[in-house]
Amino acid sequence: MTIQFAPRQSVEQVEESNDLAPKFDANGLIPAVTTDYTSGELLMHGYMNDEALRRTIETGEAHYYSRSRQKLWRKGETSGLVQKVKQLLVDDDQDCVWMRVEVATDVKGGGASCHVGYRSCFYRAIPTGEDATSAANADGQIQLTFTEGEKAFDPKEVYGDAPNPTKL
Amino acid sequence: MTIQFAPRQSVEQVEESNDLAPKFDANGLIPAVTTDYTSGELLMHGYMNDEALRRTIETGEAHYYSRSRQKLWRKGETSGLVQKVKQLLVDDDQDCVWMRVEVATDVKGGGASCHVGYRSCFYRAIPTGEDATSAANADGQIQLTFTEGEKAFDPKEVYGDAPNPTKL
Repeated sequence: MTIQFAPRQSVEQVEESNDLAPKFDANGLIPAVTTDYTSGELLMHGYMNDEALRRTIETGEAHYYSRSRQKLWRKGETSGLVQKVKQLLVDDDQDCVWMRVEVATDVKGGGASCHVGYRSCFYRAIPTGEDATSAANADGQIQLTFTEGEKAFDPKEVYGDAPNPTKL
Repeated sequence: MTIQFAPRQSVEQVEESNDLAPKFDANGLIPAVTTDYTSGELLMHGYMNDEALRRTIETGEAHYYSRSRQKLWRKGETSGLVQKVKQLLVDDDQDCVWMRVEVATDVKGGGASCHVGYRSCFYRAIPTGEDATSAANADGQIQLTFTEGEKAFDPKEVYGDAPNPTKL
């Protein structure tokens, strides 16, 4: 059976009912927020198209749409760092989903989710408030602080010559 | 002093350096993921424009860009449910930020962040795997499950006649 999404008919239906009626943006994508099921740490922020959301629901494994490669992306297909979805949630207006996952631990970099080699993609903090103004240089630029001591894996070992997905 | 963002010059600079060089999308926005500092719960997923990110950094209070109202939005300006930023992080390619916040507790609905009245905007779960197929009706539609027992506040009391931001 193929999972079907409900048509969006009213604000009340979208916010208050049991219908799954996701809203994909002009590019056919919906943002997906991925946190570690045990620690609650934010691991990554990605996007799904209709097919990625459907496959995530059907398989219980995180699928995204890779904007840089423009294709369906089963997380871990190259690295082995598969994300098992323990809980999947949708927000009030159904234009975002939240995946609470367990990351595979039986491969190199086990438990990590970031292509740079860190556990989380969010490995740098931005100072705020007084810390920001005191951290600014003469041009008003502030410096990020690294929050993870070291990388969980060497991305060259895991991804080889695969192109870096980061775009300027 | 006005906070300045660094120009994006190389993948290495963006991923590995201390420069804050955020990437705003074609609409001038960057997604912001907001979690509760204490519980780790995902509270909401919003967007910031350049000014909202700058003000968040300068004030230590969450500012977003409201896409429905098309204006800068200091969270809590109507409801009093202000979000104090305890930690602000940026991801590898700097096209998303993560705010770990404490929500004001001294107002109606204290600790809540969702305009529908729930604590989190993510108050419904999507079944996955075997649970999804067994939960599907004859049309292949699956039913969401509510995860919060009851609303934290009555949105009519807090927001009055303000237009609902949810768009079909």
